Amino acid sequence: MKRELSIVKIGGNVIENSSELNNFLRLFSALDTHKILVHGGGKKATEIGQKLGIKSKMIEGRRITDAGSLDVALMVYAGLVNKKIVGTLQAMDCNALGLSGADANLVQAYKRPVTKVDFGLVGDISGVNASALKNFLEMGMVPVFCALTHDQKGQMLNTNADTIAAELAIALSSNYKVTLYYCFEKQGVLMDKDDEQSVIPDINWTSYQQLITDRIITDGMLPKMENSFRALKSKVARVCIGNISMLESGKSLYTTLSL
Amino acid sequence: MKRELSIVKIGGNVIENSSELNNFLRLFSALDTHKILVHGGGKKATEIGQKLGIKSKMIEGRRITDAGSLDVALMVYAGLVNKKIVGTLQAMDCNALGLSGADANLVQAYKRPVTKVDFGLVGDISGVNASALKNFLEMGMVPVFCALTHDQKGQMLNTNADTIAAELAIALSSNYKVTLYYCFEKQGVLMDKDDEQSVIPDINWTSYQQLITDRIITDGMLPKMENSFRALKSKVARVCIGNISMLESGKSLYTTLSL
Repeated sequence: MKRELSIVKIGGNVIENSSELNNFLRLFSALDTHKILVHGGGKKATEIGQKLGIKSKMIEGRRITDAGSLDVALMVYAGLVNKKIVGTLQAMDCNALGLSGADANLVQAYKRPVTKVDFGLVGDISGVNASALKNFLEMGMVPVFCALTHDQKGQMLNTNADTIAAELAIALSSNYKVTLYYCFEKQGVLMDKDDEQSVIPDINWTSYQQLITDRIITDGMLPKMENSFRALKSKVARVCIGNISMLESGKSLYTTLSL
Repeated sequence: MKRELSIVKIGGNVIENSSELNNFLRLFSALDTHKILVHGGGKKATEIGQKLGIKSKMIEGRRITDAGSLDVALMVYAGLVNKKIVGTLQAMDCNALGLSGADANLVQAYKRPVTKVDFGLVGDISGVNASALKNFLEMGMVPVFCALTHDQKGQMLNTNADTIAAELAIALSSNYKVTLYYCFEKQGVLMDKDDEQSVIPDINWTSYQQLITDRIITDGMLPKMENSFRALKSKVARVCIGNISMLESGKSLYTTLSL
């Protein structure tokens, strides 16, 4: 039987609040499966960028990554945030190993082709070095990824953390029974966005289509849902969406996706 | 017979000059032994710190690391500098893995005890996880260390890069025939500090004592020499001091230390 692997993605809402982050890291370190953490960045990068005189450009609500913004991402995501998480996990007896996609060539990407918009130094993933990751996991290590990849030609690239988590899950699903957890600020996918209690506990591919038609699931949630179903269609065992308390066993409400 | 391992330390003078850094990385990636890179930080941290309104305090010519300075070190050393080096090495087919001492608990330290001076968040090394490092090396990976360690209680610490390189060399010397290279701006240890050509090709423990007595080796060089001889006394095979061209086989002048 395949061994279990939990891949957990956290975003800015967890990272920016140090007590929330500590709560999360305690729950994460207590998971008794193999595990991988993927973290986004949050507002700290914007704040540091502003102090350094580097403005973050947005087009259609999406961040454009120029050379200056990439430097800020390297500093804040790969440096400050990643190493603080690694240090904290180590203190919790969780043998964290901080990584970007360039390290050990773990996540390869190419610069997103320019169509209407040039997103700049943004990478779309072309490959995952699953065998190196498997070795790390078998050595008892806990990979902690920031959302940066590389093009194998010396260029680091900014990559969406949800997508990295999904691609890692897919790449490792032939070796492990993978559960992919997307932690965000809500308790799950909501029936009514103004009612925090209206969590939809289960969504399958058919009900997902209906929820889109009914405009229950709209723009903001679509990329996460697409990543989730792509993962499920690629042999990832389970995808869960909710806030950090979904890592506590059998306690909280969250959304589980299936095909 | 033990396999060869080269541990190379570079400082600010190499990192701050991008063409020098590329030249170095080309030489480093061409070394046909197992290898580890340890890099310091340089002026970039001071520059970033100033822009962020964080001043670096100095006492007796040594940097004091307060919480703000440590954040800058995490950003610049563990983030910006480390990942750019890793990305560049990957493009040179060198399977770099960027690391701090917290990652995989590789370099453990404790906050330097306060005597006359409180250096702040500065770590003295208490242990090296040689078995994890050996696994990385046997997997064909090339560890790239920034000069940060951790206290295993969640605190990252600033640690001298020369000392990290020496401690890694010592810890791995029972498994490998280790050569420790200290790259700096000069061609080697100089007989006359104003004459770049006056490199002393060989120094042993006896001649070292004489060079101190004769005031040829003075304050600035002493810590590097102490690290070197400590390494040699702990079974490190060879220590070389010079500029980056000492990595080219059989070409340049540099200083070789022995007992």
